[in-house]
Amino acid sequence: MKLYNMKQATNPRRVRIYLAEKGIEVPTQDVDIMSGENRSEVYLAVNPRGTLPALQLDDGTVIDESIAICRYFETLHPQPPLFGIGALEQAQVEQWQRRIEFDGFFNVASVFRNTAPHFATRSAPGSAPDTRQIPDLAERGRILLPGFFRMVDDRLRDRQFVVGDTLTVADITLFCTIGFARWVDIGIPDDCPNLHRWNEAFRQRPSAKA
Amino acid sequence: MKLYNMKQATNPRRVRIYLAEKGIEVPTQDVDIMSGENRSEVYLAVNPRGTLPALQLDDGTVIDESIAICRYFETLHPQPPLFGIGALEQAQVEQWQRRIEFDGFFNVASVFRNTAPHFATRSAPGSAPDTRQIPDLAERGRILLPGFFRMVDDRLRDRQFVVGDTLTVADITLFCTIGFARWVDIGIPDDCPNLHRWNEAFRQRPSAKA
Repeated sequence: MKLYNMKQATNPRRVRIYLAEKGIEVPTQDVDIMSGENRSEVYLAVNPRGTLPALQLDDGTVIDESIAICRYFETLHPQPPLFGIGALEQAQVEQWQRRIEFDGFFNVASVFRNTAPHFATRSAPGSAPDTRQIPDLAERGRILLPGFFRMVDDRLRDRQFVVGDTLTVADITLFCTIGFARWVDIGIPDDCPNLHRWNEAFRQRPSAKA
Repeated sequence: MKLYNMKQATNPRRVRIYLAEKGIEVPTQDVDIMSGENRSEVYLAVNPRGTLPALQLDDGTVIDESIAICRYFETLHPQPPLFGIGALEQAQVEQWQRRIEFDGFFNVASVFRNTAPHFATRSAPGSAPDTRQIPDLAERGRILLPGFFRMVDDRLRDRQFVVGDTLTVADITLFCTIGFARWVDIGIPDDCPNLHRWNEAFRQRPSAKA
Protein backbone atom coordinates (compact mmCIF):
# COMPACT_ATOMS: atom_id res chain seq x y z
CA MET A 1 0.00 0.00 0.00
CA LYS A 2 1.26 3.48 -0.90
CA LEU A 3 -0.17 6.99 -0.58
CA TYR A 4 0.80 9.38 -3.39
CA ASN A 5 1.31 12.59 -1.53
CA MET A 6 2.52 16.17 -1.68
CA LYS A 7 3.64 17.61 1.61
CA GLN A 8 2.40 21.17 0.98
CA ALA A 9 -0.87 20.36 -0.81
CA THR A 10 -4.18 20.60 0.99
CA ASN A 11 -6.00 17.48 -0.20
CA PRO A 12 -3.17 15.10 0.76
CA ARG A 13 -3.01 16.93 4.10
CA ARG A 14 -6.66 16.05 4.78
CA VAL A 15 -5.79 12.37 4.44
CA ARG A 16 -2.59 12.65 6.48
CA ILE A 17 -4.46 14.30 9.37
CA TYR A 18 -7.18 11.65 9.15
CA LEU A 19 -4.59 8.86 9.30
CA ALA A 20 -2.79 10.53 12.22
CA GLU A 21 -6.09 10.78 14.15
CA LYS A 22 -6.61 7.05 13.52
CA GLY A 23 -3.03 6.11 14.34
CA ILE A 24 -2.59 4.47 10.93
CA GLU A 25 0.77 4.62 9.15
CA VAL A 26 0.94 4.35 5.37
CA PRO A 27 4.11 4.67 3.26
CA THR A 28 4.03 7.79 1.07
CA GLN A 29 5.59 8.83 -2.24
CA ASP A 30 5.79 12.51 -3.09
CA VAL A 31 4.58 13.93 -6.41
CA ASP A 32 5.12 17.64 -7.14
CA ILE A 33 2.00 19.37 -8.50
CA MET A 34 3.71 22.78 -8.82
CA SER A 35 6.22 21.53 -11.39
CA GLY A 36 3.53 19.48 -13.15
CA GLU A 37 4.86 16.05 -12.09
CA ASN A 38 1.23 15.02 -11.51
CA ARG A 39 0.75 15.28 -15.28
CA SER A 40 3.81 13.14 -16.10
CA GLU A 41 3.33 9.82 -17.91
CA VAL A 42 4.64 8.00 -14.84
CA TYR A 43 1.98 9.42 -12.52
CA LEU A 44 -0.86 9.28 -15.05
CA ALA A 45 -0.18 5.54 -15.33
CA VAL A 46 -1.05 5.37 -11.61
CA ASN A 47 -3.94 7.88 -11.61
CA PRO A 48 -5.11 8.99 -15.07
CA ARG A 49 -7.05 11.82 -13.46
CA GLY A 50 -3.73 13.35 -12.34
CA THR A 51 -4.99 14.44 -8.93
CA LEU A 52 -3.47 13.96 -5.48
CA PRO A 53 -3.76 12.18 -3.12
CA ALA A 54 -4.18 8.67 -4.50
CA LEU A 55 -3.97 5.44 -2.53
CA GLN A 56 -2.52 2.42 -4.30
CA LEU A 57 -3.43 -0.92 -2.72
CA ASP A 58 -1.15 -3.95 -2.83
CA ASP A 59 -3.09 -5.46 -5.75
CA GLY A 60 -2.57 -2.26 -7.76
CA THR A 61 -6.10 -0.85 -7.26
CA VAL A 62 -5.99 2.95 -6.97
CA ILE A 63 -8.47 5.04 -4.97
CA ASP A 64 -8.39 8.77 -5.55
CA GLU A 65 -10.45 11.52 -3.88
CA SER A 66 -9.37 12.31 -0.32
CA ILE A 67 -12.72 11.54 1.29
CA ALA A 68 -12.98 8.21 -0.57
CA ILE A 69 -9.55 7.23 0.77
CA CYS A 70 -10.65 8.15 4.31
CA ARG A 71 -13.84 6.09 3.94
CA TYR A 72 -11.77 3.09 2.87
CA PHE A 73 -9.84 3.24 6.13
CA GLU A 74 -12.98 4.06 8.16
CA THR A 75 -14.53 0.68 7.33
CA LEU A 76 -11.30 -1.19 8.11
CA HIS A 77 -10.46 0.82 11.26
CA PRO A 78 -13.75 2.08 12.70
CA GLN A 79 -12.22 3.44 15.95
CA PRO A 80 -12.30 6.30 16.70
CA PRO A 81 -15.27 7.04 14.39
CA LEU A 82 -14.52 10.06 12.19
CA PHE A 83 -17.66 9.90 10.02
CA GLY A 84 -20.21 9.97 12.86
CA ILE A 85 -22.33 7.30 14.55
CA GLY A 86 -25.95 6.57 13.62
CA ALA A 87 -28.15 7.87 10.81
CA LEU A 88 -28.51 11.49 11.92
CA GLU A 89 -24.93 12.11 12.98
CA GLN A 90 -23.54 10.41 9.87
CA ALA A 91 -25.81 12.60 7.73
CA GLN A 92 -24.71 15.71 9.62
CA VAL A 93 -21.03 14.86 9.17
CA GLU A 94 -21.67 14.39 5.45
CA GLN A 95 -23.65 17.63 5.31
CA TRP A 96 -21.01 19.71 7.07
CA GLN A 97 -18.11 18.09 5.25
CA ARG A 98 -19.80 19.04 1.98
CA ARG A 99 -20.84 22.54 3.09
CA ILE A 100 -17.28 23.28 4.18
CA GLU A 101 -15.83 21.77 1.03
CA PHE A 102 -18.18 23.52 -1.41
CA ASP A 103 -18.66 26.91 0.29
CA GLY A 104 -15.17 27.15 1.80
CA PHE A 105 -12.50 24.91 0.32
CA PHE A 106 -13.65 25.26 -3.31
CA ASN A 107 -13.77 29.05 -3.04
CA VAL A 108 -10.24 29.15 -1.64
CA ALA A 109 -9.17 26.85 -4.49
CA SER A 110 -10.85 29.23 -6.96
CA VAL A 111 -8.75 32.10 -5.63
CA PHE A 112 -5.52 30.08 -5.59
CA ARG A 113 -5.76 28.29 -8.94
CA ASN A 114 -6.86 31.43 -10.77
CA THR A 115 -4.06 33.63 -9.46
CA ALA A 116 -0.96 31.47 -8.73
CA PRO A 117 1.58 31.86 -11.57
CA HIS A 118 2.25 28.07 -11.65
CA PHE A 119 -1.31 27.46 -12.83
CA ALA A 120 -1.47 30.17 -15.52
CA THR A 121 -2.48 27.63 -18.18
CA ARG A 122 -3.94 24.90 -15.96
CA SER A 123 -6.58 26.43 -13.76
CA ALA A 124 -8.53 23.13 -13.66
CA PRO A 125 -7.02 20.40 -11.47
CA GLY A 126 -5.20 17.21 -12.40
CA SER A 127 -4.87 16.11 -16.01
CA ALA A 128 -7.77 18.26 -17.26
CA PRO A 129 -7.17 20.07 -20.58
CA ASP A 130 -5.26 23.34 -20.39
CA THR A 131 -7.54 26.17 -19.37
CA ARG A 132 -6.46 29.72 -18.68
CA GLN A 133 -7.04 31.43 -15.34
CA ILE A 134 -10.27 33.36 -14.79
CA PRO A 135 -9.56 36.44 -12.62
CA ASP A 136 -13.32 36.99 -12.07
CA LEU A 137 -13.56 33.54 -10.49
CA ALA A 138 -10.79 34.39 -8.02
CA GLU A 139 -12.65 37.60 -7.20
CA ARG A 140 -15.90 35.67 -6.69
CA GLY A 141 -14.14 33.34 -4.26
CA ARG A 142 -13.03 36.37 -2.24
CA ILE A 143 -16.60 37.75 -2.24
CA LEU A 144 -18.10 34.48 -0.99
CA LEU A 145 -15.58 33.48 1.69
CA PRO A 146 -16.58 35.94 4.45
CA GLY A 147 -20.11 34.46 4.48
CA PHE A 148 -18.63 30.98 4.75
CA PHE A 149 -16.46 31.92 7.73
CA ARG A 150 -19.49 33.47 9.48
CA MET A 151 -21.59 30.35 8.82
CA VAL A 152 -19.06 28.08 10.51
CA ASP A 153 -18.38 30.61 13.26
CA ASP A 154 -22.09 30.58 14.05
CA ARG A 155 -22.14 26.78 13.99
CA LEU A 156 -19.25 26.66 16.49
CA ARG A 157 -20.98 28.86 19.06
CA ASP A 158 -21.22 26.62 22.16
CA ARG A 159 -19.67 23.70 20.26
CA GLN A 160 -16.24 22.14 20.56
CA PHE A 161 -16.50 20.37 17.18
CA VAL A 162 -18.47 20.93 13.97
CA VAL A 163 -20.72 17.88 14.61
CA GLY A 164 -21.25 15.96 17.84
CA ASP A 165 -18.85 15.72 20.78
CA THR A 166 -15.75 14.50 19.00
CA LEU A 167 -13.65 15.38 15.98
CA THR A 168 -14.85 14.22 12.53
CA VAL A 169 -13.79 14.65 8.91
CA ALA A 170 -15.88 17.84 8.84
CA ASP A 171 -13.40 19.38 11.31
CA ILE A 172 -10.47 18.11 9.25
CA THR A 173 -11.81 19.69 6.05
CA LEU A 174 -12.40 22.95 7.92
CA PHE A 175 -8.91 23.03 9.44
CA CYS A 176 -7.29 22.33 6.06
CA THR A 177 -9.46 24.98 4.39
CA ILE A 178 -8.26 27.60 6.89
CA GLY A 179 -4.64 26.58 6.26
CA PHE A 180 -5.18 26.73 2.49
CA ALA A 181 -6.77 30.18 2.77
CA ARG A 182 -3.54 31.48 4.29
CA TRP A 183 -1.79 30.69 0.96
CA VAL A 184 -3.89 33.44 -0.64
CA ASP A 185 -3.62 35.80 2.35
CA ILE A 186 -7.15 35.19 3.59
CA GLY A 187 -7.42 34.82 7.35
CA ILE A 188 -10.31 34.07 9.68
CA PRO A 189 -12.22 37.38 10.04
CA ASP A 190 -11.80 39.18 13.37
CA ASP A 191 -15.54 38.93 14.07
CA CYS A 192 -15.43 35.10 14.15
CA PRO A 193 -14.31 34.40 17.75
CA ASN A 194 -15.73 30.87 17.85
CA LEU A 195 -13.85 29.86 14.74
CA HIS A 196 -10.62 31.40 16.09
CA ARG A 197 -11.03 29.40 19.34
CA TRP A 198 -11.81 26.18 17.45
CA ASN A 199 -8.80 26.67 15.15
CA GLU A 200 -6.42 27.26 18.07
CA ALA A 201 -7.69 24.08 19.75
CA PHE A 202 -7.12 22.04 16.57
CA ARG A 203 -3.60 23.45 16.23
CA GLN A 204 -2.76 21.85 19.58
CA ARG A 205 -3.62 18.35 18.32
CA PRO A 206 -0.60 16.25 17.28
CA SER A 207 -2.36 15.44 13.99
CA ALA A 208 -2.21 19.14 12.99
CA LYS A 209 1.46 18.64 12.08
CA ALA A 210 0.80 15.60 9.84
CA MET B 1 -40.85 14.50 7.82
CA LYS B 2 -40.83 16.68 4.70
CA LEU B 3 -38.57 17.01 1.66
CA TYR B 4 -38.24 20.54 0.29
CA ASN B 5 -38.18 19.91 -3.41
CA MET B 6 -38.28 21.44 -6.87
CA LYS B 7 -39.59 19.15 -9.57
CA GLN B 8 -37.31 20.40 -12.36
CA ALA B 9 -34.10 20.89 -10.34
CA THR B 10 -31.28 18.37 -10.52
CA ASN B 11 -30.22 18.05 -6.88
CA PRO B 12 -33.74 17.28 -5.61
CA ARG B 13 -34.04 14.79 -8.47
CA ARG B 14 -31.01 12.90 -7.19
CA VAL B 15 -32.79 12.39 -3.88
CA ARG B 16 -36.13 11.50 -5.49
CA ILE B 17 -34.49 8.81 -7.64
CA TYR B 18 -32.63 7.48 -4.59
CA LEU B 19 -35.89 7.25 -2.61
CA ALA B 20 -37.67 5.57 -5.53
CA GLU B 21 -34.91 2.95 -5.77
CA LYS B 22 -35.34 2.31 -2.03
CA GLY B 23 -39.13 2.29 -2.19
CA ILE B 24 -39.33 5.07 0.43
CA GLU B 25 -42.09 7.68 0.25
CA VAL B 26 -41.55 11.12 1.77
CA PRO B 27 -44.02 14.05 1.58
CA THR B 28 -42.62 16.92 -0.47
CA GLN B 29 -43.12 20.68 -0.59
CA ASP B 30 -42.09 22.58 -3.70
CA VAL B 31 -39.91 25.69 -3.58
CA ASP B 32 -39.21 27.58 -6.83
CA ILE B 33 -35.54 28.43 -7.32
CA MET B 34 -36.09 30.18 -10.67
CA SER B 35 -38.29 32.89 -9.12
CA GLY B 36 -36.00 33.17 -6.09
CA GLU B 37 -38.44 31.58 -3.60
CA ASN B 38 -35.44 29.72 -2.13
CA ARG B 39 -34.15 33.11 -0.94
CA SER B 40 -37.45 34.10 0.69
CA GLU B 41 -37.59 34.66 4.46
CA VAL B 42 -39.94 31.69 4.80
CA TYR B 43 -37.51 29.24 3.21
CA LEU B 44 -34.38 30.72 4.79
CA ALA B 45 -36.01 30.08 8.17
CA VAL B 46 -35.99 26.38 7.19
CA ASN B 47 -32.58 26.28 5.48
CA PRO B 48 -30.48 29.45 5.92
CA ARG B 49 -28.18 28.24 3.15
CA GLY B 50 -31.09 28.59 0.71
CA THR B 51 -30.28 25.44 -1.24
CA LEU B 52 -32.51 22.57 -2.32
CA PRO B 53 -33.23 19.82 -1.47
CA ALA B 54 -33.55 19.95 2.32
CA LEU B 55 -35.06 17.28 4.53
CA GLN B 56 -36.91 18.42 7.63
CA LEU B 57 -37.31 15.76 10.31
CA ASP B 58 -40.30 15.61 12.66
CA ASP B 59 -38.31 17.31 15.45
CA GLY B 60 -37.48 20.22 13.13
CA THR B 61 -33.88 19.19 12.38
CA VAL B 62 -32.97 20.05 8.78
CA ILE B 63 -30.46 18.13 6.67
CA ASP B 64 -29.38 19.77 3.44
CA GLU B 65 -27.00 18.44 0.75
CA SER B 66 -28.50 15.72 -1.45
CA ILE B 67 -25.90 13.07 -0.63
CA ALA B 68 -26.22 13.74 3.12
CA ILE B 69 -29.98 13.20 2.86
CA CYS B 70 -29.40 9.92 1.00
CA ARG B 71 -26.92 8.76 3.64
CA TYR B 72 -29.49 9.45 6.36
CA PHE B 73 -31.92 7.05 4.70
CA GLU B 74 -29.15 4.54 3.86
CA THR B 75 -28.48 3.89 7.55
CA LEU B 76 -32.20 3.55 8.34
CA HIS B 77 -33.05 1.48 5.23
CA PRO B 78 -29.90 -0.40 4.22
CA GLN B 79 -31.58 -2.55 1.54
CA PRO B 80 -30.84 -2.45 -1.34
CA PRO B 81 -27.40 -0.96 -0.58
CA LEU B 82 -26.82 2.16 -2.73
CA PHE B 83 -23.48 3.20 -1.20
CA GLY B 84 -21.63 -0.10 -1.75
CA ILE B 85 -20.74 -3.01 0.53
CA GLY B 86 -17.37 -3.41 2.25
CA ALA B 87 -14.37 -1.07 2.49
CA LEU B 88 -13.22 -1.14 -1.14
CA GLU B 89 -16.62 -0.92 -2.80
CA GLN B 90 -17.79 1.82 -0.44
CA ALA B 91 -14.62 3.77 -1.23
CA GLN B 92 -15.16 3.27 -4.96
CA VAL B 93 -18.76 4.46 -4.76
CA GLU B 94 -17.55 7.55 -2.90
CA GLN B 95 -14.73 8.06 -5.42
CA TRP B 96 -16.98 7.80 -8.48
CA GLN B 97 -19.79 9.80 -6.92
CA ARG B 98 -17.29 12.59 -6.31
CA ARG B 99 -15.53 12.30 -9.68
CA ILE B 100 -18.88 12.51 -11.47
CA GLU B 101 -20.03 15.38 -9.27
CA PHE B 102 -16.84 17.44 -9.55
CA ASP B 103 -15.77 16.73 -13.14
CA GLY B 104 -19.29 16.42 -14.60
CA PHE B 105 -22.12 17.87 -12.55
CA PHE B 106 -20.22 20.96 -11.38
CA ASN B 107 -19.08 21.79 -14.92
CA VAL B 108 -22.65 21.53 -16.21
CA ALA B 109 -23.72 23.77 -13.32
CA SER B 110 -20.98 26.26 -14.29
CA VAL B 111 -22.41 26.46 -17.81
CA PHE B 112 -26.00 26.75 -16.61
CA ARG B 113 -25.62 29.22 -13.77
CA ASN B 114 -23.34 31.49 -15.76
CA THR B 115 -25.60 31.72 -18.81
CA ALA B 116 -29.26 31.30 -17.69
CA PRO B 117 -30.98 34.74 -17.56
CA HIS B 118 -32.65 33.88 -14.23
CA PHE B 119 -29.25 33.80 -12.54
CA ALA B 120 -27.79 37.00 -14.03
CA THR B 121 -27.03 38.41 -10.58
CA ARG B 122 -26.88 35.18 -8.53
CA SER B 123 -24.40 32.86 -10.20
CA ALA B 124 -23.53 31.25 -6.82
CA PRO B 125 -26.17 28.89 -5.39
CA GLY B 126 -28.60 29.34 -2.52
CA SER B 127 -28.49 32.42 -0.32
CA ALA B 128 -24.92 33.38 -1.25
CA PRO B 129 -24.30 37.11 -1.87
CA ASP B 130 -25.21 38.41 -5.31
CA THR B 131 -22.45 37.65 -7.80
CA ARG B 132 -22.60 38.35 -11.51
CA GLN B 133 -22.26 35.62 -14.11
CA ILE B 134 -18.79 34.76 -15.44
CA PRO B 135 -19.01 33.88 -19.16
CA ASP B 136 -15.46 32.46 -19.12
CA LEU B 137 -16.52 29.95 -16.45
CA ALA B 138 -19.37 28.72 -18.64
CA GLU B 139 -16.89 28.37 -21.49
CA ARG B 140 -14.49 26.43 -19.26
CA GLY B 141 -17.29 24.02 -18.34
CA ARG B 142 -17.86 23.36 -22.03
CA ILE B 143 -14.14 22.77 -22.57
CA LEU B 144 -13.89 20.25 -19.73
CA LEU B 145 -17.07 18.21 -20.25
CA PRO B 146 -16.00 16.11 -23.28
CA GLY B 147 -13.11 14.66 -21.22
CA PHE B 148 -15.55 13.84 -18.42
CA PHE B 149 -17.92 11.99 -20.76
CA ARG B 150 -14.99 9.98 -22.19
CA MET B 151 -13.76 9.09 -18.69
CA VAL B 152 -17.11 7.61 -17.69
CA ASP B 153 -17.59 6.00 -21.12
CA ASP B 154 -14.28 4.23 -20.63
CA ARG B 155 -15.30 3.18 -17.13
CA LEU B 156 -18.54 1.67 -18.47
CA ARG B 157 -16.81 -0.53 -21.03
CA ASP B 158 -17.85 -4.09 -20.02
CA ARG B 159 -19.74 -2.74 -16.99
CA GLN B 160 -23.46 -2.51 -16.37
CA PHE B 161 -23.05 0.00 -13.51
CA VAL B 162 -20.39 2.54 -12.50
CA VAL B 163 -19.27 0.45 -9.49
CA GLY B 164 -19.96 -3.22 -8.77
CA ASP B 165 -22.87 -5.31 -10.07
CA THR B 166 -25.78 -3.15 -8.93
CA LEU B 167 -26.89 0.47 -9.10
CA THR B 168 -25.40 2.94 -6.59
CA VAL B 169 -25.54 6.69 -5.93
CA ALA B 170 -22.66 7.08 -8.40
CA ASP B 171 -25.05 5.96 -11.17
CA ILE B 172 -27.76 8.30 -9.88
CA THR B 173 -25.41 11.31 -9.94
CA LEU B 174 -24.31 10.38 -13.46
CA PHE B 175 -27.86 9.99 -14.75
CA CYS B 176 -28.89 13.34 -13.26
CA THR B 177 -25.77 15.03 -14.66
CA ILE B 178 -26.66 13.83 -18.18
CA GLY B 179 -30.22 15.15 -17.76
CA PHE B 180 -28.91 18.49 -16.45
CA ALA B 181 -26.50 18.78 -19.40
CA ARG B 182 -29.46 18.69 -21.77
CA TRP B 183 -30.65 21.99 -20.25
CA VAL B 184 -27.58 23.64 -21.76
CA ASP B 185 -27.78 21.66 -25.02
CA ILE B 186 -24.90 19.37 -24.18
CA GLY B 187 -25.50 15.74 -25.10
CA ILE B 188 -23.46 12.57 -24.65
CA PRO B 189 -20.81 12.66 -27.41
CA ASP B 190 -21.36 10.23 -30.32
CA ASP B 191 -18.07 8.48 -29.59
CA CYS B 192 -19.26 7.33 -26.13
CA PRO B 193 -21.23 4.16 -26.99
CA ASN B 194 -20.92 2.64 -23.51
CA LEU B 195 -22.36 5.74 -21.87
CA HIS B 196 -25.22 5.85 -24.41
CA ARG B 197 -26.04 2.20 -23.63
CA TRP B 198 -25.85 2.76 -19.87
CA ASN B 199 -28.08 5.86 -20.12
CA GLU B 200 -30.72 4.03 -22.17
CA ALA B 201 -30.78 1.22 -19.58
CA PHE B 202 -31.24 3.71 -16.72
CA ARG B 203 -34.08 5.42 -18.58
CA GLN B 204 -35.99 2.12 -18.47
CA ARG B 205 -35.94 2.04 -14.65
CA PRO B 206 -39.15 3.21 -12.98
CA SER B 207 -37.05 5.50 -10.72
CA ALA B 208 -35.95 7.52 -13.77
CA LYS B 209 -39.36 9.23 -13.75
CA ALA B 210 -39.15 10.22 -10.07
